[in-house]
Amino acid sequence: MPSQHQIWRWSAGEPLLPAADELAQEEPLEIRVANRAVSVTMRTPGHDEELALGFLLSEGLINTGADVLRIEPCPHDRGGNVLNVVLAPHAIVDFQKLTRHVFASSSCGVCGKATIESIHQRIDPINSDVTIDPNVLLSFPDKLRAAQATFDRTGGLHGAAIFTTAGELIVAREDVGRHNAVDKVLGYGLRTEAFPFDRHVLMVSGRTSFEIMQKALAGRVPIVAAISAPSSLAVEFARESDQTLVGFIRGNRMNVYSEPQRVRAS
Amino acid sequence: MPSQHQIWRWSAGEPLLPAADELAQEEPLEIRVANRAVSVTMRTPGHDEELALGFLLSEGLINTGADVLRIEPCPHDRGGNVLNVVLAPHAIVDFQKLTRHVFASSSCGVCGKATIESIHQRIDPINSDVTIDPNVLLSFPDKLRAAQATFDRTGGLHGAAIFTTAGELIVAREDVGRHNAVDKVLGYGLRTEAFPFDRHVLMVSGRTSFEIMQKALAGRVPIVAAISAPSSLAVEFARESDQTLVGFIRGNRMNVYSEPQRVRAS
Repeated sequence: MPSQHQIWRWSAGEPLLPAADELAQEEPLEIRVANRAVSVTMRTPGHDEELALGFLLSEGLINTGADVLRIEPCPHDRGGNVLNVVLAPHAIVDFQKLTRHVFASSSCGVCGKATIESIHQRIDPINSDVTIDPNVLLSFPDKLRAAQATFDRTGGLHGAAIFTTAGELIVAREDVGRHNAVDKVLGYGLRTEAFPFDRHVLMVSGRTSFEIMQKALAGRVPIVAAISAPSSLAVEFARESDQTLVGFIRGNRMNVYSEPQRVRAS
Repeated sequence: MPSQHQIWRWSAGEPLLPAADELAQEEPLEIRVANRAVSVTMRTPGHDEELALGFLLSEGLINTGADVLRIEPCPHDRGGNVLNVVLAPHAIVDFQKLTRHVFASSSCGVCGKATIESIHQRIDPINSDVTIDPNVLLSFPDKLRAAQATFDRTGGLHGAAIFTTAGELIVAREDVGRHNAVDKVLGYGLRTEAFPFDRHVLMVSGRTSFEIMQKALAGRVPIVAAISAPSSLAVEFARESDQTLVGFIRGNRMNVYSEPQRVRAS
């Protein structure tokens, strides 16, 4: 839920006037695995367990929902901002897999190419014959917006959603951080055993970056669609991962940046 | 500079057609201090030294440009994606000051309040009698947009700029990461000795988060303005730091979220 704040509005020719406003909530969440802190992320409270699951999937610490025994709040934390993930006995914790560690140990020669390769060392490219009708893709921005209840009130949240290729909405989540919104929809899949999303589309409300494509690959999502532009590294990553990346879905148009064979009238 | 890519465009009723497109560049930058990696951030190449300086300022590792002797590329790196910062002898490196360490060691009870307090332990609130005419603020979105050469071509970049309260643009930078764009304008100040920006306005193209306000405070900027909405924690942070936070500057209107006494006709 958005939070209520006392603000001041100004219009040309008028004095500042007090007003009430709703803001998108932002609070830090500390994610622990086996009581060891692995991340503190600024997020919008809500669906925190999904966020933790999706984050751990993206970082390669878990592969399925069955790798997690339970998720518990820290007993000394009263703010609801600390979660501890208890892994199943068969799940081996390899903290070296954390992306930040991969980056930090990549030493000289950090470049986009090296970054992509380090991720492909642990995640295979997509291998999928799924296709989607571009007219179905055109319907996603409105459906995502309709599912983003808070955005309309605050203007401050990124959205992410999983759709079937027939256009059915599976789950939509929103967050002040675009990567968190994606983690939440992936975590939903892990919790509900709807995972993997290997015949699905990930739709995001803003731009696509390297990080979004990496998360989509961890979720085995063959098609990623966005309302705005991708970065150069997002496109490079998509091409090397055999992911279809679509952007600028506006009106009756869109751009396809990689693997265009998946976009065709059914 | 944006990079050139081969893509496919689709319009309703037409087949996919090959086209050329320009994308915002995204590459990782590893920042080292005394040859120790302190951060890998995904950024748009360009003004990398400013990005490193602004990042170190935000993290509390340096306080002025004089704290840095020189910034050098890693001799083994051919991609230009690794920078080593050599500090002046008087600058004491306290790696514990890194925000991520602060977060990771905050143990139980992580909450927005604790996060704000941990930052105020090392940075004083703003104490400034500077004011700005709201009509001057209204002119900033167009001026920032005009300075964002790449955005117009790619639609994919965040912008940040420093203005005087008279409306003069001091510096504008853009990046795929909004926090990087802010680090770059702060770093510009450190390089040119225009720093601190304590009679200035930081203008950002998107939303304001906790992190943006923290960086503005490290730069001693009394007024932060944005085209879109702030998060709840951005507003809380601004109020506790005595920063003026303005948002939704659109047409002839704006919202003031904190310290409204600085917004008045001159």
